[in-house]
Amino acid sequence: MQIEAGELLSKINQPADLKSLGELQLEQVAQELRQYIIDMVSENGGHFAASLGVVELTVALHYVMNTPYDQLIWDVGHQAYGHKILTGRRDSFETNRVMGGLSGFPKRSESEYDSFGVGHSSTSISAALGMAVASQIKGESDRQHIAVIGDGAMTGGMAFEALNHAGIEKSNLLVILNDNCMSIDPNVGALKEYLTSITTSKSYNRFRDDIASLLAKISEIGPDAFGIIKRWEKSIKGTLLKNANLFESLNFRYFGPVDGHDVIKLAKTLEDLKHIPGPKLLHVVTVKGKGYSLAEKDQTKWHAPGLFDKITGEIKKSIPTKPEAPKFQDVFGHTLVELAEQNKNIVGITPAMPSGSSMNIMMKAMPDRAFDVGIAEQHAVTFSAGLATQGLVPFCNIYSSFMQRAYDQVIHDVALQNLNVVMCLDRAGVVGADGPTHHGAYDIAFMRCIPGLTVSAPMNEEELRNLMYTAQLKDQGPFVIRYPRGKGVMPDWKRPFQALPIGKGRKITDGEEVAILSLGAIGNEAVKACQLLQQEGIFPAHYDLRYAKPLDQELLHEVFTKYKRVITLEDGCLQGGVGSAILEFMVDNNYHSQVKRLGIADEIIEHGEQEVLWEVCGYDVQGIVKTVKNMTTAIRTDTMTG
Amino acid sequence: MQIEAGELLSKINQPADLKSLGELQLEQVAQELRQYIIDMVSENGGHFAASLGVVELTVALHYVMNTPYDQLIWDVGHQAYGHKILTGRRDSFETNRVMGGLSGFPKRSESEYDSFGVGHSSTSISAALGMAVASQIKGESDRQHIAVIGDGAMTGGMAFEALNHAGIEKSNLLVILNDNCMSIDPNVGALKEYLTSITTSKSYNRFRDDIASLLAKISEIGPDAFGIIKRWEKSIKGTLLKNANLFESLNFRYFGPVDGHDVIKLAKTLEDLKHIPGPKLLHVVTVKGKGYSLAEKDQTKWHAPGLFDKITGEIKKSIPTKPEAPKFQDVFGHTLVELAEQNKNIVGITPAMPSGSSMNIMMKAMPDRAFDVGIAEQHAVTFSAGLATQGLVPFCNIYSSFMQRAYDQVIHDVALQNLNVVMCLDRAGVVGADGPTHHGAYDIAFMRCIPGLTVSAPMNEEELRNLMYTAQLKDQGPFVIRYPRGKGVMPDWKRPFQALPIGKGRKITDGEEVAILSLGAIGNEAVKACQLLQQEGIFPAHYDLRYAKPLDQELLHEVFTKYKRVITLEDGCLQGGVGSAILEFMVDNNYHSQVKRLGIADEIIEHGEQEVLWEVCGYDVQGIVKTVKNMTTAIRTDTMTG
Repeated sequence: MQIEAGELLSKINQPADLKSLGELQLEQVAQELRQYIIDMVSENGGHFAASLGVVELTVALHYVMNTPYDQLIWDVGHQAYGHKILTGRRDSFETNRVMGGLSGFPKRSESEYDSFGVGHSSTSISAALGMAVASQIKGESDRQHIAVIGDGAMTGGMAFEALNHAGIEKSNLLVILNDNCMSIDPNVGALKEYLTSITTSKSYNRFRDDIASLLAKISEIGPDAFGIIKRWEKSIKGTLLKNANLFESLNFRYFGPVDGHDVIKLAKTLEDLKHIPGPKLLHVVTVKGKGYSLAEKDQTKWHAPGLFDKITGEIKKSIPTKPEAPKFQDVFGHTLVELAEQNKNIVGITPAMPSGSSMNIMMKAMPDRAFDVGIAEQHAVTFSAGLATQGLVPFCNIYSSFMQRAYDQVIHDVALQNLNVVMCLDRAGVVGADGPTHHGAYDIAFMRCIPGLTVSAPMNEEELRNLMYTAQLKDQGPFVIRYPRGKGVMPDWKRPFQALPIGKGRKITDGEEVAILSLGAIGNEAVKACQLLQQEGIFPAHYDLRYAKPLDQELLHEVFTKYKRVITLEDGCLQGGVGSAILEFMVDNNYHSQVKRLGIADEIIEHGEQEVLWEVCGYDVQGIVKTVKNMTTAIRTDTMTG
Repeated sequence: MQIEAGELLSKINQPADLKSLGELQLEQVAQELRQYIIDMVSENGGHFAASLGVVELTVALHYVMNTPYDQLIWDVGHQAYGHKILTGRRDSFETNRVMGGLSGFPKRSESEYDSFGVGHSSTSISAALGMAVASQIKGESDRQHIAVIGDGAMTGGMAFEALNHAGIEKSNLLVILNDNCMSIDPNVGALKEYLTSITTSKSYNRFRDDIASLLAKISEIGPDAFGIIKRWEKSIKGTLLKNANLFESLNFRYFGPVDGHDVIKLAKTLEDLKHIPGPKLLHVVTVKGKGYSLAEKDQTKWHAPGLFDKITGEIKKSIPTKPEAPKFQDVFGHTLVELAEQNKNIVGITPAMPSGSSMNIMMKAMPDRAFDVGIAEQHAVTFSAGLATQGLVPFCNIYSSFMQRAYDQVIHDVALQNLNVVMCLDRAGVVGADGPTHHGAYDIAFMRCIPGLTVSAPMNEEELRNLMYTAQLKDQGPFVIRYPRGKGVMPDWKRPFQALPIGKGRKITDGEEVAILSLGAIGNEAVKACQLLQQEGIFPAHYDLRYAKPLDQELLHEVFTKYKRVITLEDGCLQGGVGSAILEFMVDNNYHSQVKRLGIADEIIEHGEQEVLWEVCGYDVQGIVKTVKNMTTAIRTDTMTG
């Protein structure tokens, strides 16, 4: 179905077209843009509620600012659909998040209007400050640099680091705080409470607005009062009022809060702010999902709802014809509660991903023992380390690519102290439509170099349960469990717990000529490959490594003694991954087998469906089949010529 | 020389002995403790000024709190010498930072009084909150949890993440802000200015102290005033005053500022705070280096001055008998200015390490183009990325182990966008006395798995200069240069610049039988080893790889074609390091040489002199000699039995 843009929107091919409109037409543009996003996302999927919330802000920004000369950075980027549609990507927007199509996030290589690539939270102020300082060095004093950042992203530590630095630079930086009390899940933390108090406290706002008139009035009261007040005037107007606001404390000029759905007022405010130099913050209050009532009411569900009927709001789901395997995420969530019921020391920690990781199941069942700490991966890991020093067993669940944010904390606070923190790396391996910023490509490489860590990956739901069970047994030390986004393979997954000995793998299929060593759920593709190959009379052996660290030495001695051709398989980067670990073992032990490593190639992997990306990298079922065949052919040639 | 503790201090073997003293004796204890630190550090070296600054705070804390049941965490830990001396380590303190002796930082395995191991900045609030929440879960309501954190460390993002979370927990947490305006170098940033304004603004403090009396007085003025003031009372007392302080904005109860050198007042204040539940912050103002006037005057120099004459303040330096090679740090600093004079796009960035990294040379020469961004590694890297989008060439200098803090930013903001940020990893390899928290052990492994990165390591000063020159040439993309702490090998280092082709190594010595492939400055040990071996008639070849990524394929084809015995050598972890990369090359290309990888073993390497740690890990000169001999013997055996 062809989706038509509204009357005004259909003529906006770039921001210059928007600028040619009168201010009074902005409301109509906003309305049409909102409708276009609803039409597009309901048909094609993607992130939804965040972009609806900033429709007016997006229109006002491109109306007032001289993009792309003025530089606009959307923190995280879930909210940038309106921005993409107004900046030359209206008609191609149906390819959003499709392989080869538009990225779901702003991306420098996609458009000159995307000043900075995003995906992870809290980077925008640092990047915008870099651009602003560059303009200062180059003498471009007319140039605007704008970071649009949510109140959730503002809790990420690097945002604070950037505010602290920006406050002493004189460069031209505008931070727009998009305050909607939501990330994917509701925001938590003291900052959120503070912002709410600013926004909702009538007395506070009345005080702010009327302070000048109070000072005027009070001086009329009488000479005594005048003397006292005179004495205090400087304090009240100066230091106190200045410091009355957290952002003013950090040398930012604070403006707001303003209604983020009043496009005309927003445009006027932005116009004014253009002429105020130095660091400044505009506090804009918006509603996530604005204009689509179902989304306003259940903002988490409508963050990225998938395809839906835009009239009824019914979310389209394919109906399974046979019992379906659960998502690894749900297995994690339910298993954690089951374990926590047995082991009173278990606690759960998520940095702002309760629904995505299924930590919300424990948060609901045991609210005193499960913690959403906000967008704060670094804190999440060291907080977990602190808990572990007291004999508690924290399950700290962080997406693989977000764990990159807490890498030092894993080394410095967990591993060096040998603390029993269980680090569950969700979304390990290629993740699909979210693309390069979110692929969990590097964790095996960056974790296995840390001394004392156990690094594991379950092949299926039962192994995930058993690894979680194993990880919480006494004195296990730092324990990593990585597993992918999406469904497993076992509809009947809820089986009794069983400890899995550390550093021991298992043989899945005995075989001839070639051995496949797989780590994690990608091993299921090897199972399929073996079945196909068996039909052709080729019988590779298949082993499930389970642990990338420590490696199963006994298993590997068996493999390298028996097989002169070995394939390693991982849903992770080839450089330094588990295949590389196996080469280290092989060479250290003087084996000389031929080894072909399958995994993520040493390049940026763009967005696309997981299976397709496996194919691109050559480790889908057919890729494995082909690799085995090449090696068996090689053997046959060897035999014939030998 | 035996160092004697003073009369009272000599009897304090644990905090219980301190508690038995009368309050009026605390000043004498503090004085004796200060003198003992001066005596010890002047004789044995170590961190100096930080511990002098918190002598009174340390005494007061152990006097009032019930350590180790009450949990005390020293952020970073430079300032914890007094703590160590009062907690059973007085007599062993002369082994501080000596191999096998005390760690220079608090360390859980060393003492039950060291509640949390530290070394890197800004972890203390997260860890203390974890402990406090654990106490809450376990029902230990009488337990105190104290984080002592400097105003410098407070700018690190994770400290803010922790404050944001702590503000909504009801657990018993006391953050003591040790405000001395210093890290190793003077602190920078908006937070520092804010704290200074609180501390120094007379009107602000007068306002705070007298607000209650103002409200009382003003109501006497007259009925008109009373009506108006009554209306404002709630605002003034409530929201406004609450929010008048940055920490109160985050739901912390704020106390202070108090004089951090008044031990009796500190003890009284701490006693009061014990009985106030929930998150609270005590702002203590101290002088770094307090009580040693030279240190008070030049706090950076006296952060860790080395051995000195405590009477004259003369710092003891060994006088070189021949021209000395410079430190890599100084070569970096001077070369950066030299390059920046030629290339106007070069800018310099350091996160709070101007003197340690020698970025201070550029900060002095070109203050508009060199930035100290505070303790803020994450921001430093993304700020650099922002600068690079505008065509500037940032040299972002971060110690290897601190770069672990900015790992996601390297991947997400620099590498994915292919930005020409030059990341100079100082202190790569084992660092010596600072020990495990500071060893730059993992960077080759965690960097080389990132697509598109160039990862290099200079063998000597000239190579460092040339790599810096190469990195700033047009469109080089993300560029890592890692180099060690300390001296190089070339007194005559200032030679003309020369571009070093990306991914090309060089042959140092042609040879027979065995080839050594070294990366970086550790290659100089291989040079020495080759010289020794030549005297015994053994002639290994030696290649300087220069680049860990991309590898020099041509060179490696030559090596593996010619040599059946190969040694790889790196001052970095063996798991996933450059040796591992070479195995990947070898196996991918169907070579079958015997390879012995030398580097940092897969275990926590404790503190000790660099050369000694190389020896422990088997890659000092003698370790290399031995490895070559083992391999040549193997060859001879092969030949004899072949």
